[in-house]
Amino acid sequence: MNTIRKSVQSKPWLGWILFAITALIVFGLGLLTSSIIERRTETLYLDQKKVEIDQFEPRNIVWSQNYPKQYESYMATRDTSFVSKYNGNAKIDQLELFPELVILWAGYGFSKDYNQPKGHVYAISDIEETLRTGAPTGPDDGPMPATCWTCKSPDVPRMMDKIGVKEFYTGKWASHGGEVVNPIGCADCHNEKTMELQITRPALVEAFERQGKDINVATHQEMRTLVCAQCHVEYYFNKEKPFEGVPYLTFPWDNGMTVEDIEKYYDDIEFSDWTHSLSKAPMIKAQHPGYEIFQTGIHARRGVACADCHMPYKSEGGVKFTDHKIQSPLNNMSTSCQVCHRESEQELTNSVYANMDRVLEIRGNLEHLLVTTHLEAEYAWKMGATEDQMKLALMDIRHAQWRWDFAAASHGGAFHAPVETLRVLGTGIQKAQDARLKIASVVFELGHKGNIPLADVSTKSKAQAYIGLDMDKLIEEKKKFLKEVLPKWNEAAKKREDAMPQYDIKNKAVSMK
Amino acid sequence: MNTIRKSVQSKPWLGWILFAITALIVFGLGLLTSSIIERRTETLYLDQKKVEIDQFEPRNIVWSQNYPKQYESYMATRDTSFVSKYNGNAKIDQLELFPELVILWAGYGFSKDYNQPKGHVYAISDIEETLRTGAPTGPDDGPMPATCWTCKSPDVPRMMDKIGVKEFYTGKWASHGGEVVNPIGCADCHNEKTMELQITRPALVEAFERQGKDINVATHQEMRTLVCAQCHVEYYFNKEKPFEGVPYLTFPWDNGMTVEDIEKYYDDIEFSDWTHSLSKAPMIKAQHPGYEIFQTGIHARRGVACADCHMPYKSEGGVKFTDHKIQSPLNNMSTSCQVCHRESEQELTNSVYANMDRVLEIRGNLEHLLVTTHLEAEYAWKMGATEDQMKLALMDIRHAQWRWDFAAASHGGAFHAPVETLRVLGTGIQKAQDARLKIASVVFELGHKGNIPLADVSTKSKAQAYIGLDMDKLIEEKKKFLKEVLPKWNEAAKKREDAMPQYDIKNKAVSMK
Repeated sequence: MNTIRKSVQSKPWLGWILFAITALIVFGLGLLTSSIIERRTETLYLDQKKVEIDQFEPRNIVWSQNYPKQYESYMATRDTSFVSKYNGNAKIDQLELFPELVILWAGYGFSKDYNQPKGHVYAISDIEETLRTGAPTGPDDGPMPATCWTCKSPDVPRMMDKIGVKEFYTGKWASHGGEVVNPIGCADCHNEKTMELQITRPALVEAFERQGKDINVATHQEMRTLVCAQCHVEYYFNKEKPFEGVPYLTFPWDNGMTVEDIEKYYDDIEFSDWTHSLSKAPMIKAQHPGYEIFQTGIHARRGVACADCHMPYKSEGGVKFTDHKIQSPLNNMSTSCQVCHRESEQELTNSVYANMDRVLEIRGNLEHLLVTTHLEAEYAWKMGATEDQMKLALMDIRHAQWRWDFAAASHGGAFHAPVETLRVLGTGIQKAQDARLKIASVVFELGHKGNIPLADVSTKSKAQAYIGLDMDKLIEEKKKFLKEVLPKWNEAAKKREDAMPQYDIKNKAVSMK
Repeated sequence: MNTIRKSVQSKPWLGWILFAITALIVFGLGLLTSSIIERRTETLYLDQKKVEIDQFEPRNIVWSQNYPKQYESYMATRDTSFVSKYNGNAKIDQLELFPELVILWAGYGFSKDYNQPKGHVYAISDIEETLRTGAPTGPDDGPMPATCWTCKSPDVPRMMDKIGVKEFYTGKWASHGGEVVNPIGCADCHNEKTMELQITRPALVEAFERQGKDINVATHQEMRTLVCAQCHVEYYFNKEKPFEGVPYLTFPWDNGMTVEDIEKYYDDIEFSDWTHSLSKAPMIKAQHPGYEIFQTGIHARRGVACADCHMPYKSEGGVKFTDHKIQSPLNNMSTSCQVCHRESEQELTNSVYANMDRVLEIRGNLEHLLVTTHLEAEYAWKMGATEDQMKLALMDIRHAQWRWDFAAASHGGAFHAPVETLRVLGTGIQKAQDARLKIASVVFELGHKGNIPLADVSTKSKAQAYIGLDMDKLIEEKKKFLKEVLPKWNEAAKKREDAMPQYDIKNKAVSMK
């Protein structure tokens, strides 16, 4: 410094050179700042609303005018190419893979048809195509109630607003065929003015109220889980007072959210989803208690929201936005897991599978045990067992399968909460075996000796034939429905939507409908 | 700066003041550096060897001359004040707390006496005081073989060097009474010249060799687990060729380290630790497969060693050293867990207990089931069952209890690997119930109807009376042993050790002996 000072003192022009260098550096910093500001401009441009969206606007393509990045990533849920270690790709027939399921669900719709879950964009086409919804010939026909649409579409809040909640739940599934046409999308979770997250389904709000909680005080981070909890939960159709026969969508959380809490809730009101056609047990179908079981795992404990891993932030052209391609984080680890975990993708994947392998092993064991138990119970009935003799065994079957289904239908449970899932399965195995001990006692009393002979139900077709399903007929009826009834629904929907504001959606990519 | 420059130009003495200030700052930095160097000096001073330690030196107090910090922290394992959520303090009688254990271990030493594990410093006094080692009256008397000393003391490598490994394992436990007197300590894990970690027990080295692995290529981080794996593992006494009746300490890892791998190993050689006195099942006692189950958990996966959490680094007076107060990391979270995990102690503790609660619930369920199963098997024998009728049920009991014991005796398993532990317990529950189904079939064939009546074994004393233990006699004999035999062992040991180099240990705190 001394040398420079002396030089400047002797040659004043040197000071000007230093000044020029400084000016150049400042100029460079200015360029950098400008580039940052430009990115911000792009963001602002993208944030700019191009159209005013109406309340209850169900068409995702309309929202896409204002939120093209989010919409494009949402549409990417069409992608079914991710193959996990266990499931193969999304088109796989789960009943072919696990014929046990046919027996477990004998007498219930899932024994007809059950495929790998797919992305949100398939919500409408999948429910129309599955054999579970049957082949209604008119609005008052078919096996499913209107309530089954509730989680499928942003047309649902629109209709609930128009006709009323209880009224929406009234009647057959086919009665809303021309109304519910847009797959799960923007209006299911977002306010159309502020884009803030909002709860659009009454069941979640009502469940909170019955527990004395106010969902309106939820933080934004909590909402990033709660919007998912509108659907990814355990539920049942309450037809009791004050709903007088209308299957009112209800979350059974009044005692709490553990497998035992919810079981007690159902036991207390003597609710069952169906009576098993082989064992005659009064069954509970666990729907998809993903939210409930997620709460018991370490990620929930650490304040992680569903969206943190399933909808991580993404950058494109300097714009940061929430990725609406909701998918397995295993297909997207760099922006999901690796935001917090520093291990390699391979190592993280291995860690996840190490736990899942263990959970799926025990779940598989219980699955097999339950098949055996249903068949053994059926045998006891054939031997002439009385309802009194079978009662306790049937309750054990109900509770054992409820536990298996809670673990299986919670979907990510083997990842979200492997310890709780294995606890649940451990008690399920004990109860299935308790049922077998009771049934053994009954058949021995009825004169049987040795092992109970069991039918061969080792493939999907054998199992479906055994439980008396006429699959050819079901498939034929479905084809007829898809050919004759569905086009009418779509036609009515098109006519109705053509009368809505059109913006410039005609020029945009067609939605899945 | 401009102002300062101008001032300096006009008043040259100001430059000297600035120089003086700079000099003062440099002086301050010098003081700081000196303080750091001083600490380093203290470290060097502490690292300095004061005595030359002989090979196989078993007296921890001798090592303390060179390594006082490590020794002091080792001696702190005397502290038994940590109370976990489950265990109460270390003096608690586990058989009082869990009377089921008395039935589970009927016919085996553990049904007599089983207390909470304590620190390393109690290794010798505990094994001398427990009823399990009985009350030998002479060197060839008592229920336990000499092999039982193997993990208890640095006198073991000393003796193995002196008399040979197989020779050490030969004879009764009482035969080494005057030789094995120093509790687990320095020479068990450290080289006396370099202080490097070393394996002193043959069983681990031999198990590695049989698997085609060389333990000598283990890294230092691996050694920080492997020195613990000399003892905290599953083992058995192999009396077959080439050991011709000598109970040779052997790790059953030849097929692998999972519960199924080790079970297959034992099944293949038709090994059993004892025959259950009620059910007559050929039982395997899981010893303490802590190392095996630790391998299956996330901490092992991430390269964490036992010592990282149980012996974390500690600073005292500028000296950083490994804390030899080996204990539950829950009693020491700031230097163990919180080195990696940023959550609060309370939150980390809650996370640990959330998993442990679930594991202990299922373990408790299996514990109860096993009691029932043993009693039901006993009832079948009383009904006149034949060995042929019972054979398969007894194998199920063997495998079910092996799983329970693997989960229970692995000690930290509910923390180290809750998912694997629950997997193990899930299969255990299934097998216990399988046994009950088979026994039910047998007793029904023998003419029994309804539930099998079970004895009241709900307290330690009821259970011990039921399995035919004369506790008063055992306690009386033990007292006599402690009063008459043990003093002679200690006297012989003192005489022997007095003839060894004395250094200045006379002036040091007395060891636990």
